[in-house]
Amino acid sequence: MNDKEVVLSGIRATGNLHLGNYYGALSKFVKMQNDYDCLFFIADLHALTTNPDPDALHENVKNILAEYLAAGIDPEKATIFVQSDVPEISEMYLLLNMHVGIGELLRTASFKDKARKQLGLGAAGADDDIEKQIIGSDTNKRVNAGLLTYPTLMAVDILIQKAHKVPVGKDQEQHLELTRRFARRFNSFYGVDLFPEPENFNFGDHAVKVPGLDGSGKMGKSEGNCVYLIDEEKVLRKKVMRSVTDEGPKEPNQPISQPVENLLTLMELTSAPEIVQSYRDAYADCSIRYGDMKKQLAEDILKVTTPIRERYHDIRNDEAYISRVVRQGAERARERAAKTLEEVRQVMGIRKF
Amino acid sequence: MNDKEVVLSGIRATGNLHLGNYYGALSKFVKMQNDYDCLFFIADLHALTTNPDPDALHENVKNILAEYLAAGIDPEKATIFVQSDVPEISEMYLLLNMHVGIGELLRTASFKDKARKQLGLGAAGADDDIEKQIIGSDTNKRVNAGLLTYPTLMAVDILIQKAHKVPVGKDQEQHLELTRRFARRFNSFYGVDLFPEPENFNFGDHAVKVPGLDGSGKMGKSEGNCVYLIDEEKVLRKKVMRSVTDEGPKEPNQPISQPVENLLTLMELTSAPEIVQSYRDAYADCSIRYGDMKKQLAEDILKVTTPIRERYHDIRNDEAYISRVVRQGAERARERAAKTLEEVRQVMGIRKF
Repeated sequence: MNDKEVVLSGIRATGNLHLGNYYGALSKFVKMQNDYDCLFFIADLHALTTNPDPDALHENVKNILAEYLAAGIDPEKATIFVQSDVPEISEMYLLLNMHVGIGELLRTASFKDKARKQLGLGAAGADDDIEKQIIGSDTNKRVNAGLLTYPTLMAVDILIQKAHKVPVGKDQEQHLELTRRFARRFNSFYGVDLFPEPENFNFGDHAVKVPGLDGSGKMGKSEGNCVYLIDEEKVLRKKVMRSVTDEGPKEPNQPISQPVENLLTLMELTSAPEIVQSYRDAYADCSIRYGDMKKQLAEDILKVTTPIRERYHDIRNDEAYISRVVRQGAERARERAAKTLEEVRQVMGIRKF
Repeated sequence: MNDKEVVLSGIRATGNLHLGNYYGALSKFVKMQNDYDCLFFIADLHALTTNPDPDALHENVKNILAEYLAAGIDPEKATIFVQSDVPEISEMYLLLNMHVGIGELLRTASFKDKARKQLGLGAAGADDDIEKQIIGSDTNKRVNAGLLTYPTLMAVDILIQKAHKVPVGKDQEQHLELTRRFARRFNSFYGVDLFPEPENFNFGDHAVKVPGLDGSGKMGKSEGNCVYLIDEEKVLRKKVMRSVTDEGPKEPNQPISQPVENLLTLMELTSAPEIVQSYRDAYADCSIRYGDMKKQLAEDILKVTTPIRERYHDIRNDEAYISRVVRQGAERARERAAKTLEEVRQVMGIRKF
């Protein structure tokens, strides 16, 4: 695997994966694992930065592991591991914090967003407000140091594996930019060439936006407009049948409304091109029947999700298999991480006796 | 050792130990190790929060280890270890950061002091100034997240060993108070009784203030008024002979000036009571000769430091011995730390597969 570029991607251990995750990331990872040296990890430590839930955490980790495997991530091709199984990450997190400025952390956009939520402030609040509130006396517990130093932890996830490429969405681009900055700063402070600067993995023309079922924008966990990979058949059909459309085209060739375009976009991901075209034509000549279209869409989504759901349940019931995969992944991830950590310790002057 | 109270004390790995450290702490530790379950550690990670110096760090650690051992810390009685040898500390530091508020860290007095120094601000600067400067755009590297989260790390040092008592000076009392708060908060958030609340180890009447040689206040590394335990005989004599006094008493029974009182205080620590009294009498009847007094003081200090210095050089030259001590200490410290960390992980919901 040594000649291949290292690609790393993490996912927070909160909730199940939906079609947006599948088409936006997972289905691409399944292809990438053949061409790159891929590491996929479950970010359970990141999940602790807001509202930790001890009872749910381990189950969430297992669910997402099983979903990754069910969707086609192959533990013989890619390294799949759980973040908290790699203690070297925590060690390097402490060390890297010595080279990360408080100012740059406080100014991170995603930190401000999340801090606002923790403090129950509207998005409209000026930046000044948020800074005063954080420093203010009544916020002792609500905005924690783990949340502030999230960019350090994310940088460590990437740098400790010396990843070259990290597929991130718009909301994570600033963190990747910070990671590059920390890498440059560390290299230059100690006069070494230890960390490569990781780039965003560019899917090029293949970037997909997966719309939700509610007629508005993107499919998203917090939007409540999702089709989950492991939705049971009945549940999934019901969701699709209840999806938002419009009152139907009033005149031939009128522009397609957003809600209907959303369903057509979902069809383009799951159905045969000629089927999608037939519904576009039916919209154009006003003969479209949304009931039929939704039945077709549900059917075609199920063709994608059913095998994944079935594998998911098999894997989820095979705790021994999950354990084996995770232990093997941890071993591989730790081997690299330990090597990088030892280099970092040497460079910083921490030597074993 | 199980019935004894656990006492923990750390020392930053910066520079050598002086008489103030010896009489204020080290000589007490030598007695405490018989009555308590003592852990002494070299805080090399703490030393990284300001101006890390990779070339000096490891040597500093070895020096301080050798000084501890030379002064009488017995590795068979007490556990002596290096902070960075216990990776469980870093792991718990990350986890505890999830329960430590940014506001309470930013308001810590020692943080503000150190941040002011890093930013080149005078001590007179209002608190507001320091907060604005930290958040301001030009401080990216100068005030780092390691410095901000120092109280988390110190709390972990203490809590991971479940220490009952921690001897700290005035400047560290706020940190110990924060440690208690973090312990209470963790216990109550998760509904457990995991951490005891550590108390300051109270030396009672035996608290000593060791003055420096410059006629002013306390002996301190940064004051440049120190007698170091490993000062060579010639160096030490010269320092004492050059110490500040006054122009001599002008009339019988006048109050003793501060610089002379300082030297008499040092004498009280090192010389026989009748000798100290003889100099007090000589001051009172104006017959005192500072040259004689200083010679006597140097002689008596050397009686204390010479055996320590000699043992120091023996130990410093025996790398195998230092290694053995440190490895044994790390093993013991890690055993407790790993136990606590596993409890913390379980409580927070992080389970092994």
